[in-house]
Amino acid sequence: MEKNPKQFRNQNRRPAPERQYSPEKDDGMTLIGRNAVLEALNSERPIDRIYVKSGDTEGTIRVIIAKAKERGIVIKEIAKNRLDEMTSNANHQGVIASCPFVPYATIDDMFEKANASDEQPFLIILDEIKDPHNLGAIIRTADATGAHGVIIPARRAVGLTSAVGKTSAGAANHVLVAKVTNIASTIDDLKKKGVWIACADMSGDSMYKADLKGSIALVIGSEGEGVGRLVKERCDFAVSLPMKGVLNSLNASVAAGVLMYEVLRAREI
Amino acid sequence: MEKNPKQFRNQNRRPAPERQYSPEKDDGMTLIGRNAVLEALNSERPIDRIYVKSGDTEGTIRVIIAKAKERGIVIKEIAKNRLDEMTSNANHQGVIASCPFVPYATIDDMFEKANASDEQPFLIILDEIKDPHNLGAIIRTADATGAHGVIIPARRAVGLTSAVGKTSAGAANHVLVAKVTNIASTIDDLKKKGVWIACADMSGDSMYKADLKGSIALVIGSEGEGVGRLVKERCDFAVSLPMKGVLNSLNASVAAGVLMYEVLRAREI
Repeated sequence: MEKNPKQFRNQNRRPAPERQYSPEKDDGMTLIGRNAVLEALNSERPIDRIYVKSGDTEGTIRVIIAKAKERGIVIKEIAKNRLDEMTSNANHQGVIASCPFVPYATIDDMFEKANASDEQPFLIILDEIKDPHNLGAIIRTADATGAHGVIIPARRAVGLTSAVGKTSAGAANHVLVAKVTNIASTIDDLKKKGVWIACADMSGDSMYKADLKGSIALVIGSEGEGVGRLVKERCDFAVSLPMKGVLNSLNASVAAGVLMYEVLRAREI
Repeated sequence: MEKNPKQFRNQNRRPAPERQYSPEKDDGMTLIGRNAVLEALNSERPIDRIYVKSGDTEGTIRVIIAKAKERGIVIKEIAKNRLDEMTSNANHQGVIASCPFVPYATIDDMFEKANASDEQPFLIILDEIKDPHNLGAIIRTADATGAHGVIIPARRAVGLTSAVGKTSAGAANHVLVAKVTNIASTIDDLKKKGVWIACADMSGDSMYKADLKGSIALVIGSEGEGVGRLVKERCDFAVSLPMKGVLNSLNASVAAGVLMYEVLRAREI
């Protein structure tokens, strides 16, 4: 093995508690090199994201980028040493692809699922959740509360990585997850279909007072930022959790869990 | 720096998504070496756990073990190469100590806190939660729901590590956390003080029916196992979350969060 002084240096740094999504921690769902990525693109295999070496847009890479754009797959340019890290110095030829461990569903699938069980749709919309453990826990709670699906954005959010599958304790195999390019326009579409859009936000009415019955989509914001302004403006109403302490926010998967159980309560009692 | 072939080898393994408590991922609350540990023991500085090299019980180490036993601190014998890893090959002299990043409280402190705000005590008892992110999220929800304290066991559970502090988003600085040697006898003591003990368990009545008013302690089980039998037997009643899906359990911090909000609901409505 070639000696790499930089690796040596990193080795001695104690790892900080790291929960942001790191594609390099994904085990096994990464396709490495031009042929593997091109083959996946040609075979219509689901792909979450393609990482290309910055500035490398010639030859096969150009073909890959064109095909990816055609399929609406997010392409990210990153530095060569980042690609080296993500592949543990494999021969990546300037391109890798991360794939979901189960295929994505569509929002229509979710409506069908609700219909088939003669229930009003109950959907979860996640605005830029980046932590795979939060996404996994939310998918697990979606299963438990009988939600018909979880909607995530294609950009600035974690997808169905194997870490998410693991934290979901297998629930990701049962819960429908759809990836959309634009959360705001998805909300507009849902409203046209008669779904009420409830935004989890501290500015909202207490969940004790909110009407969470009927067709509903709960919008949960990102770990640090909450729900973005453009998304928030489109929601029908905001709902908040009572906060009795010093801090004014909760872990995203806990807040989502409490509200999802509030929706279930409104449906059951 | 000395070349270490083993480090080189490890370097190339992709890290799996790892959420179990790893003391070596603790940043800065680890005391390394005989003098540092002995000094902390003499100064009454709070210590969560002392790690000693297997078989090394001579000289200063013997003094350290004796003093630690006197103070009721858990001592764990581990292999030398584990100690090397935990300290990034520092000169640990066969002993290190992990310290909580804030001091522990007592259960009396919690009763006083409830008293001071003229409220019935509301406590959380965690039976062997091992994941620092779960403990951090639970402490954060304890703050939000106005719980008067969180009780954790000294053994087989994560303590107030800096990873917990970080995930709690600072809530660990405000919420009282007590560490006890025996959860079962703590429950007996609490019952004598008139606290109702509710065990989170799938066998219990639905939370919609449970009476969660008054003095209450919620017992939450570990991530994999749930609440242990000996602890469960001592509880006054069990309470369950409705489960509508394929799986029959939730992430521990989500389950705890939903039930804590149920207690708050019983207090507020």
